[in-house]
Amino acid sequence: MDIKKLVGEMTLEEKAGLCSGADFWHTKTVDRLNVPASMVSDGPHGLRKQDEKSDHLGVNDSIKAVCFPTACATASSFDRELLTSLGEALGDECQAENVSVILGPAVNIKRSPLCGRNFEYFSEDPYLAAEMAGSHIKGVQSKAVGTSLKHFLANNQEHRRMTSDSVVDERTLREIYLAAFEGAVKTGKPWTVMCSYNKINGTYGSENRRYLTDILRDEWGFDGYVMSDWGAVNDRVAGVIAGLDLEMPSSGGVNDARLVEAVRDGRLKEEVLDQAVTRILTIVDRYLKSRKPETVWDKEVHHELARKIEGECAVLLKNQGILPLSDSDEVAFIGYFATHPRYQGGGSSHINSIKVESAVEAARDKGVIYAQGYEIDGDQGNNTLLEEAVEAAKKVKTAVIFAGLPESFESEGYDRTHMAMPECQNALIEAVAAVQPNTVVVLHNGSPVEMPWIHKVKGVLEAYLGGQAVGGAVVDILYGHVNPSGKLAETFPIKLEDNPSYLYYGGEKDRAEYREGVFVGYRYYDKKKMEVLFPFGHGLSYTTFEYSNMKADKSTMKDDETVTVSLDVTNTGKVKGKEVVQIYVEAPDSHVIRPVRELREFAKVELEPGETKTVAFTLGKRAFSYYHVELKDWFVQTGAYFIHAGSSSRDLRQMISVYVESTVKEPMVYDLNSTIGDILSDPDAAEIITPLIDRYKKGSALGNSDGDAAKSAISQQMDDAMFRYMPLRQILSFAPDVSSLKELQELVDSINDKK
Amino acid sequence: MDIKKLVGEMTLEEKAGLCSGADFWHTKTVDRLNVPASMVSDGPHGLRKQDEKSDHLGVNDSIKAVCFPTACATASSFDRELLTSLGEALGDECQAENVSVILGPAVNIKRSPLCGRNFEYFSEDPYLAAEMAGSHIKGVQSKAVGTSLKHFLANNQEHRRMTSDSVVDERTLREIYLAAFEGAVKTGKPWTVMCSYNKINGTYGSENRRYLTDILRDEWGFDGYVMSDWGAVNDRVAGVIAGLDLEMPSSGGVNDARLVEAVRDGRLKEEVLDQAVTRILTIVDRYLKSRKPETVWDKEVHHELARKIEGECAVLLKNQGILPLSDSDEVAFIGYFATHPRYQGGGSSHINSIKVESAVEAARDKGVIYAQGYEIDGDQGNNTLLEEAVEAAKKVKTAVIFAGLPESFESEGYDRTHMAMPECQNALIEAVAAVQPNTVVVLHNGSPVEMPWIHKVKGVLEAYLGGQAVGGAVVDILYGHVNPSGKLAETFPIKLEDNPSYLYYGGEKDRAEYREGVFVGYRYYDKKKMEVLFPFGHGLSYTTFEYSNMKADKSTMKDDETVTVSLDVTNTGKVKGKEVVQIYVEAPDSHVIRPVRELREFAKVELEPGETKTVAFTLGKRAFSYYHVELKDWFVQTGAYFIHAGSSSRDLRQMISVYVESTVKEPMVYDLNSTIGDILSDPDAAEIITPLIDRYKKGSALGNSDGDAAKSAISQQMDDAMFRYMPLRQILSFAPDVSSLKELQELVDSINDKK
Repeated sequence: MDIKKLVGEMTLEEKAGLCSGADFWHTKTVDRLNVPASMVSDGPHGLRKQDEKSDHLGVNDSIKAVCFPTACATASSFDRELLTSLGEALGDECQAENVSVILGPAVNIKRSPLCGRNFEYFSEDPYLAAEMAGSHIKGVQSKAVGTSLKHFLANNQEHRRMTSDSVVDERTLREIYLAAFEGAVKTGKPWTVMCSYNKINGTYGSENRRYLTDILRDEWGFDGYVMSDWGAVNDRVAGVIAGLDLEMPSSGGVNDARLVEAVRDGRLKEEVLDQAVTRILTIVDRYLKSRKPETVWDKEVHHELARKIEGECAVLLKNQGILPLSDSDEVAFIGYFATHPRYQGGGSSHINSIKVESAVEAARDKGVIYAQGYEIDGDQGNNTLLEEAVEAAKKVKTAVIFAGLPESFESEGYDRTHMAMPECQNALIEAVAAVQPNTVVVLHNGSPVEMPWIHKVKGVLEAYLGGQAVGGAVVDILYGHVNPSGKLAETFPIKLEDNPSYLYYGGEKDRAEYREGVFVGYRYYDKKKMEVLFPFGHGLSYTTFEYSNMKADKSTMKDDETVTVSLDVTNTGKVKGKEVVQIYVEAPDSHVIRPVRELREFAKVELEPGETKTVAFTLGKRAFSYYHVELKDWFVQTGAYFIHAGSSSRDLRQMISVYVESTVKEPMVYDLNSTIGDILSDPDAAEIITPLIDRYKKGSALGNSDGDAAKSAISQQMDDAMFRYMPLRQILSFAPDVSSLKELQELVDSINDKK
Repeated sequence: MDIKKLVGEMTLEEKAGLCSGADFWHTKTVDRLNVPASMVSDGPHGLRKQDEKSDHLGVNDSIKAVCFPTACATASSFDRELLTSLGEALGDECQAENVSVILGPAVNIKRSPLCGRNFEYFSEDPYLAAEMAGSHIKGVQSKAVGTSLKHFLANNQEHRRMTSDSVVDERTLREIYLAAFEGAVKTGKPWTVMCSYNKINGTYGSENRRYLTDILRDEWGFDGYVMSDWGAVNDRVAGVIAGLDLEMPSSGGVNDARLVEAVRDGRLKEEVLDQAVTRILTIVDRYLKSRKPETVWDKEVHHELARKIEGECAVLLKNQGILPLSDSDEVAFIGYFATHPRYQGGGSSHINSIKVESAVEAARDKGVIYAQGYEIDGDQGNNTLLEEAVEAAKKVKTAVIFAGLPESFESEGYDRTHMAMPECQNALIEAVAAVQPNTVVVLHNGSPVEMPWIHKVKGVLEAYLGGQAVGGAVVDILYGHVNPSGKLAETFPIKLEDNPSYLYYGGEKDRAEYREGVFVGYRYYDKKKMEVLFPFGHGLSYTTFEYSNMKADKSTMKDDETVTVSLDVTNTGKVKGKEVVQIYVEAPDSHVIRPVRELREFAKVELEPGETKTVAFTLGKRAFSYYHVELKDWFVQTGAYFIHAGSSSRDLRQMISVYVESTVKEPMVYDLNSTIGDILSDPDAAEIITPLIDRYKKGSALGNSDGDAAKSAISQQMDDAMFRYMPLRQILSFAPDVSSLKELQELVDSINDKK
């Protein structure tokens, strides 16, 4: 495709038209110039292609496809290669179905457990989210199919998501919400990005030039096209100017006409419109050039892949010697989800699955007995079902209860209002545990739940929404055919109110303030020294691992250098297993308010019993820095940093200290309101004001009060503090004879001149 | 004094001069016009008059005076009359010493337990702070002596207080930080107000017209003069324009000259300067007109008053049947504070006390034995002292340990960095409690401390910084001569990190963000459902009280009416006692984010054993309202409100519901981004768009999806949520055939026209 030529030949109306969808899922054609349509379809954990008949919201019937585990599950793998393999499978399905872009992945941060769409998101941690998304993107795009990284930006609630304004300070955006996108864009290089519905600091995501262009393209180097979330366009002209190339689905021609009008009356430069068209056609062309229509994929192979992936994702939260089960054990599977697992969430990511395997089906050769236990609709218990379950539990050595959240509890489009499981399921667990000391709970849910029964059961396996093969994967783990290796990509708080966003989550009317700032997830719980139900990064194994021998290749570095740290991990148990080694960096002496420590790297390593491997990580500037709002850049404060290696965020095993020296000077301008302490702590400046300070001290009570302690109102400490935090101008109030306004101003000027 | 005439005769230089102090404590004279000086002196819990010799910072030697309990203690009395009696005593001392204004009281909110000056402040609750301050002011001013309500505004930390910017949202300012001043100004009518050092939202308190004039004078009706905190002036000209009348102490003439220059070059209108002079002279004159130089006061009488006040203030936090002691008990008083009580804090409020009575002295006839237990300086334990104390404790029936915070731990000028008591004191308590099951701790501190030993002792009496007679007051309570009736005016959190401001307290450089918003103190702990060590309003008695028979004089009211609620309180114990009945109002269905419940009234009632009294409270609009930022006014959302009567914020005893109807309509303007749900919930607007909505629903999948559940990606709930939160404009994206931009715009216009 000679895109430049094509754009040159297109009429203004054709160009404006190309910037919105032909229908729910296709870009427009320009027949006279042989510009073909291209199809986009929902993802991200399966292909939701609605080819023939798309309804009003584009959310009903779609073709059959494999439903892989959702992002809440896959993030728990902490396994980049695994996400890439998932992406490759999706890419094959897209090539087979002629889909040019599969929408997703979504890297929105899990700000609150209440967000209805959390199951589609990876983590409360931006680095983990970015790494998982980047790996997913690489996989899909290795098959010459595009992705659409979404929902850009600060779309962390479903409540009023179409109109809500996310009010977030710059440092928080940079360190948390933008960071997830930044990492995914830089490592994955997605073909497209999807803007979100909401406003960010007052401007809709669909017309926010700062994010769509200044940061996404100019800072991060994104070179694809930006499409709108479906129906997210507010002011179409402002959107094109801001960098929103493609409106989806369309506005029945209203916005196309507005673009034409804006070009005609000079509000929109035609080059800007041409640029949008060029970007869209570039991606259409990129797809067509590498088109592989002959691609075939095997449903069973992909189903088995889904099972394998989920086996790496499920998180063993608790295990008091009860798992794995033995094939010869008498076991009861209890709960509706044992036969009808909840394995995906509602909304645009909902897959019309090829098949679903339940745990009961997967364990068909193991002679488990089954009892339904509860009804899936609503909170109300059913006594008959409950009693049946209790009776079943009594008969066996071990009861495994399949519980979690019903469909209606979490979905795109609305948020949860509480963090509890249905009453009937909690009651079932209590009742079973009361008669059966060997009780395990398997959870199917997209976001954390409260577990009032946690101390009454011996095991908990978090399966999340594990895709269509979840039943098999859970049975694999329960019986020890797969050794669990998932780690929580989010904190499980004890109760909803513990969550950092709790006070302000959801906002008032259309204003959602992110007052917790950078203190999202473990960054908050650690800083506030709070107990949690299960910490970020937590996950058990059937074997044990020992960490030793942590080293760094240097103990001092400049912020433009890197440091490589390594440590040995040994499988000290009896079975093969995988450990996720997590690297957290701590800035113990920060001048700014920072989290205690932050995840900066991780690796998943597989070890035979007795085997030791050395794992190495290279950390650069970003691992030590915070976003410096005045510098408008990442900044490393000179000082010592602690690098921790942990098996979870609260199970830190090894630590090493590195001294990092900044190569950047913080900007500093002095004036009469600069404090004496600040000036004295800056060597150049101190030199200039020292004579004044000496005169001041001599003439003052400060530093040499001679009254007896009983009469003196101030202590040496107060004296010191008063002096240190006194603005220069106060010398005129407290010791007018010591200096003059003119002298003070001249001193300040000479300090500034010297800089 | 003919002030108008005087001002007319003064030269520009004389007027400018009058707007700053002659020295640390006096306003200037204008001898040729017989304008006299007037003296101001520090308070607020005693008179700190530095007449002859004032040092550099004005903080050393002062005349002898009575040190009454500090505000952290007096607030715990929850007794308006008591504060008035304290004020009257101060007023007498001022008249005797010819002091025209005694600085204080200070109503700054206790945002964090770390604030070094908390001991001078009343409460975490603005209503309580305002009532206490207002009562104090009334008492002082009844003696024709002025007060200076301080430090206005948002001065809630000592750290960098001279330059720090308090960044606070409008609703929080109104409901928490301004509210304390508002109530005190309206009920107390202070002669003067003192501005704070810090900035508020970017502008120094000394030049912030919004607070000094628009709110303080125009909204609240303040008619006195505003003075600067000592050295708080930044831009003097801006200050006068903003409403800062008097600069204290002075700037060696620099700022006077600037005022003259500003009038000469037209930047400052001379009328504005005249107004400042007029306000200052009006207060000078008010004092002189009612001058009572013959006033005498009796040191012993005031000392006894200080003892009586402290007896009403000390809070019995814990009592497992150990108190009161009997005169015949063998008792050991342990701890340095038993002989040297800490009874006031350091800084400008520090009184050169006439005498100090320790608990050991006060109990001299009771045969208590004494051991020092710890050294007052530093954290380090002294083993000899510790062992002596343990031996003493072993010998007696009951050990009473006097502990708390050393001087250096809390002071004006700097903040605490942690909430712990000295290690040596905690160790002493642990060691004594280990050998003596009957252990009581008496605390001397100005702000909450962590109590790691709380479960090991049977009693805790919080004496706060209780003034020079604290020893006697504590003995009165310990031996049951006074029945304790103090209630906490602040929450005691379990640990520092629990505090709502913890993450951002102190700020970064000179920016202190109040991100917790209105969730200060119990407003936070209740909303977050957190355990606390002792809740706001908590305090035990030697008797018990029963609440009954709560009634309201109406069940429905308009927001411009009042409701009177009453209840019966009965002393069900064996001794006379006083109970503080606390009225908390809850808005269970608030559309905005609000605290669970807030203190709106209280009364202290004294009851003989078996006696019942009816207590009545009248609540008006303010008790139900929140500050509506768009309306710029207090607003009551129509609906049911719960009125609770409690013995503490977490011991609610009676409840009654009142339905309050708003007389004000919230402003509402619709546009294409208004959601369908919002429009439909407004009856007038709903009527207009109903035909459109009917057409839309007919042509859409919404509300009637007919795909089978397995294939449908969305549930009825998602369907409903999508519809409800859809902005009107999205109809063009999702159903372009149903409407046109023109129609939508016309509908919006007609809705707005109808309003």
